[in-house]
Amino acid sequence: MSETFYVVPEAQHNALVEAVYKKRGYSKQEAAAGARFCAEATRHGIRTHNALKALHLDHLLGSGAQGCKPKAKIEKVKTKYRAAAVWNANRKLGQATGYAAIEAAIKLADKYGVGMVSVDNAFHYLWGGGYVMDAARRGYIAYTNCTAALAEVVPFGGKFPTLGTNPHSWGFPTTEAIGYPMVIDWATSVVAMGRVQQLAREGKQLPPNAAVDEKGEPTTDPTKAKYLIPFGAHKGYGLALMNEVIGAFIGGSLPTLRNRWDQAEGDKGTCTFFFQVWHPDAMNAGAFAKGRTQSQNVKAVIDDILGHGNENCMLPGQIEAQAAARTAKNGGLLFSEAEIHAFNEIAAEIRKPAWKLADFKLAE
Amino acid sequence: MSETFYVVPEAQHNALVEAVYKKRGYSKQEAAAGARFCAEATRHGIRTHNALKALHLDHLLGSGAQGCKPKAKIEKVKTKYRAAAVWNANRKLGQATGYAAIEAAIKLADKYGVGMVSVDNAFHYLWGGGYVMDAARRGYIAYTNCTAALAEVVPFGGKFPTLGTNPHSWGFPTTEAIGYPMVIDWATSVVAMGRVQQLAREGKQLPPNAAVDEKGEPTTDPTKAKYLIPFGAHKGYGLALMNEVIGAFIGGSLPTLRNRWDQAEGDKGTCTFFFQVWHPDAMNAGAFAKGRTQSQNVKAVIDDILGHGNENCMLPGQIEAQAAARTAKNGGLLFSEAEIHAFNEIAAEIRKPAWKLADFKLAE
Repeated sequence: MSETFYVVPEAQHNALVEAVYKKRGYSKQEAAAGARFCAEATRHGIRTHNALKALHLDHLLGSGAQGCKPKAKIEKVKTKYRAAAVWNANRKLGQATGYAAIEAAIKLADKYGVGMVSVDNAFHYLWGGGYVMDAARRGYIAYTNCTAALAEVVPFGGKFPTLGTNPHSWGFPTTEAIGYPMVIDWATSVVAMGRVQQLAREGKQLPPNAAVDEKGEPTTDPTKAKYLIPFGAHKGYGLALMNEVIGAFIGGSLPTLRNRWDQAEGDKGTCTFFFQVWHPDAMNAGAFAKGRTQSQNVKAVIDDILGHGNENCMLPGQIEAQAAARTAKNGGLLFSEAEIHAFNEIAAEIRKPAWKLADFKLAE
Repeated sequence: MSETFYVVPEAQHNALVEAVYKKRGYSKQEAAAGARFCAEATRHGIRTHNALKALHLDHLLGSGAQGCKPKAKIEKVKTKYRAAAVWNANRKLGQATGYAAIEAAIKLADKYGVGMVSVDNAFHYLWGGGYVMDAARRGYIAYTNCTAALAEVVPFGGKFPTLGTNPHSWGFPTTEAIGYPMVIDWATSVVAMGRVQQLAREGKQLPPNAAVDEKGEPTTDPTKAKYLIPFGAHKGYGLALMNEVIGAFIGGSLPTLRNRWDQAEGDKGTCTFFFQVWHPDAMNAGAFAKGRTQSQNVKAVIDDILGHGNENCMLPGQIEAQAAARTAKNGGLLFSEAEIHAFNEIAAEIRKPAWKLADFKLAE
């Protein structure tokens, strides 16, 4: 990595992020969950979904609009199904809700082998991979999806964006086997809208089948690209549809109204979350080849996949694990100069002193 | 559809398929499940996974090899987790095992809201979409994956096939909303090996990024294509990995040994299945916009997605539903002349009379 990074103490980062959330009306506990999650994203190199993005989103669609309500209380909806929980989050901060949901799903999985938590009236949880990684690090298999903030994606064969970028995230407890949790985590669009804007700025082309222009015609020109396309033709389209349909079963309304409160009058504009956690013991048939343990068996299978000439292949979660190792080695969160400037703009908003570049050591 | 199809009475089809299974040593119940599932595949237009494929697979990798054991008994592995079942299928016929597993998962979902069934020592269940469609038609959300019969797919960025075509299948109970269950069902390779062979016969090219040659170099020439590539770069690769890792947690061994009994001596060559079923009531937060019911809400969301100029888009499961409607209208299963000839070769093997084309009416 040639880019220069500065090492910002995690406590200093969290204090600033918490202060901003509190200034916007969030409770101490919400602010702490919000900051903790943003630190996790940065620790794992998720620069597109760090505190800067979280606070910007909150301003744009959250507490600054009608999408998120500081100090909201999660209501539990009564259900007779013992391995399932259903919540009305009442637009509570996404990170606080996400952490609580993965915790509840883990408790259900401990008892029933599998548990699920469905959340209505949710607000953007930032980075689904973070919640399933947390569960996977603690020994569980976890899955989450959500309906994305805005409809920006055109259905396969269509013209107009009626789907969100609808991400899916799965985490697997592979730390004992390979040193870190395997985390499969991506949006169902080929690229994000931020990437389109970046390529436009840089004068570069989009990959084919990533975007359409305002008439719904495919284009590789990022200055003409207006809407996104799902990855993998009908396959990614199916995966994008899935979040909307799961959301519809929970309580989400029309994708084209989502977070468009001026149009959602008398309707619903909120997102939904869906979580599942299952216990690896609850799927263990106990008959691994060559007397292996479950974890040794997982390692043997992964070694086989990455053997035979495939030694240069990556595993999902590997880049994030490398980023976390670099963070740990440097003893703080790594931010670029531009990111630190952006934090200082936020600090100025709430009349906190700016961070000084000279106070931070350079990251190795 | 310009191809000519003949209408074969379902009972006649099932009788022949059952007779072949019984001749190969399967029990009456196994033969019936096997035939019933093949009829379902044909009813829904799944011509790549009909009885001809099932009986061929059984010969090649199943009872004709060591992959499948007629009259095997499923053993339940003891687990303390109440919403989970773990089975050792002892290489029982895939369709009989798959039907039993989806039934068990439905019972768990009825009680706990979500249930899962993990199956070790399984044999090819043919078409995962069939099991989740069955559950979806009965009002449940269902998911299944399996480890595929052979390692034919190269990991993203790799050279050598160490992954199966590893399919995923999800079914949603949308019949009330749109007239049929939404079924998302595909392999994680861009194309199947059968498709490569078909394009080679027809002198056509493969799409880019679908296959590599024997050195692991990408090729669009089907005569040089030796191994397959996952769809959607790292995203499809993640989905293919998932089946192997879930399989490894259950009890599956190295992907490159799977069904390669000459190499699997002292190891395990069997497949695994994984099933989840959940009840839509167990995720219903009960607060749908505009007083809609859950099903009306699902319909409103799907109508929104397919509105706004997207009216020509398809939904996953739509083609299968159209095939089922055509089958129902014609009052029997639809087979081409070539398929009927292939059935007659099978009939000859077990000394049953051939089907006569003249006995069948032509399909409308």
